[in-house]
Amino acid sequence: MTTTSTAPHCHIAMIGLGVMGKSLTLNLIDNGFHVAGFDLNSSNIQQTTQEAQIISKGQFVACDSLEQILAHLPSPRVIALSVPAGDIVDSVITDLLNAGLNPQDIVIDTGNSLWTDTIARDKHYQGKLNFFSTAVSGGEQGARFGPALMASGDEHAWEYVKPMWNAIAAKVNQHGLPVEPLQDGEACATFTGPSGSGHYVKMVHNGIEYADMQLICEVYQYLHQVIGLKAEHIGDIFSEWNQGVLNSYLMEISADILKQKDFQSDQPLVEMILDKAGQKGTGVWTAINSLEVGCPAPSIAQSVYARSLSSLKERRQLGEQKLAVITETHKTEALSTTIAELHDALYCAKLCVYAQGFDLMKTTSEQQDWQLNFAEIAKGWRAGCIIRAVFLQSITKAFEADPQLDNLLFDQHFGHEIKSRQLNWRRCVANASLYGVAIPGIGSALSYFDSMRCATLPANLLQAQRDYFGSHTYSRIDQPESQKYHVEWSHHPRTEIKK
Amino acid sequence: MTTTSTAPHCHIAMIGLGVMGKSLTLNLIDNGFHVAGFDLNSSNIQQTTQEAQIISKGQFVACDSLEQILAHLPSPRVIALSVPAGDIVDSVITDLLNAGLNPQDIVIDTGNSLWTDTIARDKHYQGKLNFFSTAVSGGEQGARFGPALMASGDEHAWEYVKPMWNAIAAKVNQHGLPVEPLQDGEACATFTGPSGSGHYVKMVHNGIEYADMQLICEVYQYLHQVIGLKAEHIGDIFSEWNQGVLNSYLMEISADILKQKDFQSDQPLVEMILDKAGQKGTGVWTAINSLEVGCPAPSIAQSVYARSLSSLKERRQLGEQKLAVITETHKTEALSTTIAELHDALYCAKLCVYAQGFDLMKTTSEQQDWQLNFAEIAKGWRAGCIIRAVFLQSITKAFEADPQLDNLLFDQHFGHEIKSRQLNWRRCVANASLYGVAIPGIGSALSYFDSMRCATLPANLLQAQRDYFGSHTYSRIDQPESQKYHVEWSHHPRTEIKK
Repeated sequence: MTTTSTAPHCHIAMIGLGVMGKSLTLNLIDNGFHVAGFDLNSSNIQQTTQEAQIISKGQFVACDSLEQILAHLPSPRVIALSVPAGDIVDSVITDLLNAGLNPQDIVIDTGNSLWTDTIARDKHYQGKLNFFSTAVSGGEQGARFGPALMASGDEHAWEYVKPMWNAIAAKVNQHGLPVEPLQDGEACATFTGPSGSGHYVKMVHNGIEYADMQLICEVYQYLHQVIGLKAEHIGDIFSEWNQGVLNSYLMEISADILKQKDFQSDQPLVEMILDKAGQKGTGVWTAINSLEVGCPAPSIAQSVYARSLSSLKERRQLGEQKLAVITETHKTEALSTTIAELHDALYCAKLCVYAQGFDLMKTTSEQQDWQLNFAEIAKGWRAGCIIRAVFLQSITKAFEADPQLDNLLFDQHFGHEIKSRQLNWRRCVANASLYGVAIPGIGSALSYFDSMRCATLPANLLQAQRDYFGSHTYSRIDQPESQKYHVEWSHHPRTEIKK
Repeated sequence: MTTTSTAPHCHIAMIGLGVMGKSLTLNLIDNGFHVAGFDLNSSNIQQTTQEAQIISKGQFVACDSLEQILAHLPSPRVIALSVPAGDIVDSVITDLLNAGLNPQDIVIDTGNSLWTDTIARDKHYQGKLNFFSTAVSGGEQGARFGPALMASGDEHAWEYVKPMWNAIAAKVNQHGLPVEPLQDGEACATFTGPSGSGHYVKMVHNGIEYADMQLICEVYQYLHQVIGLKAEHIGDIFSEWNQGVLNSYLMEISADILKQKDFQSDQPLVEMILDKAGQKGTGVWTAINSLEVGCPAPSIAQSVYARSLSSLKERRQLGEQKLAVITETHKTEALSTTIAELHDALYCAKLCVYAQGFDLMKTTSEQQDWQLNFAEIAKGWRAGCIIRAVFLQSITKAFEADPQLDNLLFDQHFGHEIKSRQLNWRRCVANASLYGVAIPGIGSALSYFDSMRCATLPANLLQAQRDYFGSHTYSRIDQPESQKYHVEWSHHPRTEIKK
């Protein structure tokens, strides 16, 4: 039901009624909340009004001005912004302040802001308003029928926001599996902690998503290029995998896509699609963050580079002409063997990607003193978001069993999983290398694993090199690490001196 | 010869007489230039004065103040700063301006500044002074006896700086090989172009250096861990390699290091060194830059991550206890076969690292409109700097033959080199994966190669995934790329619509 009456009490306002703002609004109304809405573009208001009319639960109150928005809300007001990330967020907030916003009013940024901007805004608006943020995952469909929500900011503000976010979020049943919209279940709405942490967690989610997608693409490439399987056949294999430990939304839609025929030809649709990947930045942000904080996330970075490489299509076409490819001759083995190797490689690599993502969150959480709860974060990703998967239930359990887990790989369950699948993973990387399939994601995950379980890496030689050319000094294994040594490499005879 | 007289005419001043400033000063004096020097730390002035006294060519004029420095220089003054990167550069420049610097005076930042800071300074000091920069490679020994210099800024300023930089820089003979200090030859002092480009080129140099070092370490690890060779034996292999296409300063010092006995035990020194690598940031900057501009440099990023992983030693020790390692049984093959595979893998991977580095410079050069001359840059790296190698002569030739070369891999000479060594490279990556040696550098280089020569990557599936969950649209291979399509995936029947 929709009204343009002067009903004073809406539960929440939505500023910005584009695809995401409209969907969140309709979702709120579906759940019985009254929403005051405003958009500079009047056709967005009309569209939302029309679609809200067919819902009989909450009310939509279309507003002509921010003053009108404020008039419709009780104190403290709860106002969600669904506007593009960047300067527009600040300009809308400034307009709200000019329209009469009070210091206790809660303003929620639901856009894709960079987490450091969110922290800066929190500081900037101290005393003027209660700045809160919520990262929304799941795209348009998610926002409309159940997104994963990562909220952060003031705990007091969360008390006001929580009932609404719990109502509209995606839900899981007692087995940790997603339920249908409007069904009961545990809500995927997580309060992650201090300001900025929600957008940070969402950023890492997207970094994981990048790598998850890349891994699936590498398996597709292998089956298509080396084995010569048709897209539909690969789709069937993915459908089967989706019944087991690899069950996930991304696996499901990949299977669905591969079985889709083109609408204009006899070919599989996927083979008619140009292989130049786009990206919107969150994967790049995640990789940059991992470099900055010194926490290795190689498979996430490789996924970003894989997209960059894909976009250099003309260069690659030239490469195909110019570069001679010398590979090992493909040894024919049972298809079931190859499929088993790829399955296990995908699973192990995926586990490493999540290990990298959670380790990154742990590192930043410690640096920022956020005290992130990783079990809660994993729980919050079980439905609504793009990386939702059965797998996240096991991650939840791992962090519930040990909230301080050093690395996801060290969890007993996952350690056992990797042990039993490791040899297939190694064979997959070896074969892809011999047969000429690029596997930057699966391969970098194996290097990550082989580094993480190796007590002695060759960085001893590297430290010696650095001391040789740059006098950077080194520590000795038989002396306290804090005691640094330097060799006078160009002196004869050489001596080792304490620094 | 040193003097504290009031001799008015020095050729150049050096502000900051720490390790690098002192070395550059002595190098200038060695080459007959008179240098006015200042440092807030008087012991640095004394040290430089003492060491300058035994050189009979140029003069060192120790100064007590910046005013005195200015009084010793003819117009336009040439003043080099050798101070830590960051705010100190600006505070010294402010002091110089207060001491009476003129707009035509040339101030050269020789520190390790971030290239974007250099561009910002150039703008900031417009009209107040002629801001110039020079990145110095080669560490203390290089600065003292012949560094590689990467200068950028105003071309007019370069005319004043050039004779001095050419004199002190490292030199190569007509074969492109380094000559002894103070011998004649072609100078490794390169004017790279507009402000900031010199520091940028040096940054990429360091990124390449990171990867170059990592690749050597991976080969060492393989020979040590899988084959069980002793350090000295590996040193002998490296010495032999240093006679061929892999000839380089880093190969030479690695061989030297591996043959070095510990000073306190019977062990090889390298095995007494703690395997936790340090880093000072330029590798991280290079990797971040590659992510930001969308130019793939996976092997450089992997080298940064390898250092991060090495520093997590306690974590890795835990990993060694917790993680079961299941590898393929090592097949005994002739040692010469293994060595040949590793040799070729190192060479091919190294080539990919340089291809990534030069591609990154090309991308940024186009974005910044610098018109970098890659043949000149490669020439400038043939001596003095850490990555100096015979190899750079071939890179110089490649860019001389085609200044617009799309990718170093596409050069005919290098293409032929990779063709003949490719199978060994693949076998090395396969074996390392099967036997459990982490090879993030060599492996990522192979994935880079296999992507760069692959006209069709699986990003078609990725674009379909993005369209499925986020309505991001795709292009078709049978339609103009600018025409975007979207499938209404949740509709029945599905339709493809133009966007």
